[in-house]
Amino acid sequence: MKRIITLLTDFGTADGYVGEMKGVLATGAPDCALVDIAHDLPAHDVEAGRLALARYWHRFPVGTVHLAVVDPGVGGARAALAVESEGRMLVGPDNGILSPAMLHQGARCVVLPVHASAASTFHGRDVFAPAAAQLAQGVALDALGDPYANPIVLRTPEATRAADGSTVGVVIAIDRFGNIVTNLITRRAGTIEIAGRVIAMMRTYADVPPGALVALTGSSGLVEIAVRDGSAADQLQVARGEQVVLRTS
Amino acid sequence: MKRIITLLTDFGTADGYVGEMKGVLATGAPDCALVDIAHDLPAHDVEAGRLALARYWHRFPVGTVHLAVVDPGVGGARAALAVESEGRMLVGPDNGILSPAMLHQGARCVVLPVHASAASTFHGRDVFAPAAAQLAQGVALDALGDPYANPIVLRTPEATRAADGSTVGVVIAIDRFGNIVTNLITRRAGTIEIAGRVIAMMRTYADVPPGALVALTGSSGLVEIAVRDGSAADQLQVARGEQVVLRTS
Amino acid sequence: MKRIITLLTDFGTADGYVGEMKGVLATGAPDCALVDIAHDLPAHDVEAGRLALARYWHRFPVGTVHLAVVDPGVGGARAALAVESEGRMLVGPDNGILSPAMLHQGARCVVLPVHASAASTFHGRDVFAPAAAQLAQGVALDALGDPYANPIVLRTPEATRAADGSTVGVVIAIDRFGNIVTNLITRRAGTIEIAGRVIAMMRTYADVPPGALVALTGSSGLVEIAVRDGSAADQLQVARGEQVVLRTS
Repeated sequence: MKRIITLLTDFGTADGYVGEMKGVLATGAPDCALVDIAHDLPAHDVEAGRLALARYWHRFPVGTVHLAVVDPGVGGARAALAVESEGRMLVGPDNGILSPAMLHQGARCVVLPVHASAASTFHGRDVFAPAAAQLAQGVALDALGDPYANPIVLRTPEATRAADGSTVGVVIAIDRFGNIVTNLITRRAGTIEIAGRVIAMMRTYADVPPGALVALTGSSGLVEIAVRDGSAADQLQVARGEQVVLRTS
Repeated sequence: MKRIITLLTDFGTADGYVGEMKGVLATGAPDCALVDIAHDLPAHDVEAGRLALARYWHRFPVGTVHLAVVDPGVGGARAALAVESEGRMLVGPDNGILSPAMLHQGARCVVLPVHASAASTFHGRDVFAPAAAQLAQGVALDALGDPYANPIVLRTPEATRAADGSTVGVVIAIDRFGNIVTNLITRRAGTIEIAGRVIAMMRTYADVPPGALVALTGSSGLVEIAVRDGSAADQLQVARGEQVVLRTS
Repeated sequence: MKRIITLLTDFGTADGYVGEMKGVLATGAPDCALVDIAHDLPAHDVEAGRLALARYWHRFPVGTVHLAVVDPGVGGARAALAVESEGRMLVGPDNGILSPAMLHQGARCVVLPVHASAASTFHGRDVFAPAAAQLAQGVALDALGDPYANPIVLRTPEATRAADGSTVGVVIAIDRFGNIVTNLITRRAGTIEIAGRVIAMMRTYADVPPGALVALTGSSGLVEIAVRDGSAADQLQVARGEQVVLRTS
């Protein structure tokens, strides 16, 4: 089976940067398949990268190499990392973007050396892509660098239980459809309070009329607020960090 | 020859949703090539998906599997479909997006079962991608589900002949360049009336000066209105559904 | 090793045009890998295409075929070209977009015939993609067309030395991060003057505080002006063509 290298960046789809990385990958790992995840992450938005990566990294076959580069600290003191977790390899900066894989038991992490010839503004091309190509060619993780003991690991904050029995969470992401993703988890019926509105939990979008607000458990297992055939983020005018309250019945 | 799976969605290029589908495809059909068509279709715009699909589905080799997911009705009553037409396979929701392939004689259609474990908001990942992977692995269409007799089939509306001999059509799409695509077809010289303007049919953009309006037969065989080196949609301020009149001479 | 065909266009990621080209490529060169570079180049922006191409074309393995289609002159008098340079092949319109490869010693160029059946508005599908597929299948450059003696070759303008010893250049591009790319080259310490500001040359973004302006040598070897964790283009309100002055100390 052919090895896969996936690419997640905030480089956009109007420049040659992604092309440069792919050229390095295609040269270093000539028989691998390059698979784009997304390149229009908001610029410098490590958190958006972390949440995107959480969705897909473990769904690819064992042996896949995931390259994830949202790297506002490039050229500074932050380390360059390679990780092995659940049989997949990941490469990216030490800013938390690789956390979803590092949280698994048995995950191992090494620090990649940065050669003097690497451009101080583009480790994606000169550090991460070469390392990803090597991993895809079967080079062992430990051959790439020394173990790294304290990588930055970010977690989605946990919702808290309030005195009145409700659960208080926050908006952690808003997707392209204007769906509002929260850190709430529930398997019970209930209501969601957000931005002064009270919204009943349903099973899916089609359980409410077009244009109506609905709360449901989204595809990542978290409570989401949506508008059928519309944008909940537009209708509620909320952003990441907004408080949400869950009351189960 | 390696099997190809193409992907057309409105999931955008800033989230992890496309990545989740690709992970499922790469796991289920490990030796297939994943080919992106477009992921920035306007959210929920089934018609844009249908017109895009019409352009490319038959240009890929026999055996190709096309995944097309613009799915505002996900989780509701709409069926999940797999289609075989002209040797290509297609997978997507029963909302008309697959119509271009279903209109061909001999096209066959089955309904995909939706397992209880499928997320009610993301059949792209849990229903369509697994089915596409199976088809790409050589599983027969009929093994995926029961025949489906009445899929939704959408057609581009036909232009009509007016009493004065002119042909009356509508704008069916506007592309990234601001080119206005109509449902008019002609092989004769003539003029196009739109938004109070009369525009002569030419052969190509270069037949008029930069900034000028031009009507011509576009690459899909339909009459288009363009502005050389500019945007006809911006200049004429028209949208989908606007009336256009063709007078041949 | 499998042949690669890369694609760079201004077709966007919301239409079926890229899909049509890929269908032609997949049919004509069934065992090749299709690799997207970027499809959101500003519409008709040949210069953006040229600068993107300069970044990646030589980084791909020998034998790679690069398709680059930003083609405002389609259907007019401009020639359709195929180029061989440094063991890579390139296909695109004769408007300067392929210049980075044509500037190398030994580059050869042929003119592609345009069949009467080619859509006058979409040579990407009907002329360039078929030629790219043939090259990827091993057809020799000379078999595709006659030698073409005078292709349009564009170069980044060179900075000039002023009487006071400073070097005067221009902004040649602004990337997705708002980084301002100039045509200045220096290995010495110094300052950059732009839009009434004087900015010290540093090594990397992390050498200044968040929000501060910094000048540095970017990953293409050219002087860039950036804002750490921000957009220099927004902060300075400059565009392509703006004057920049380098004073080395």
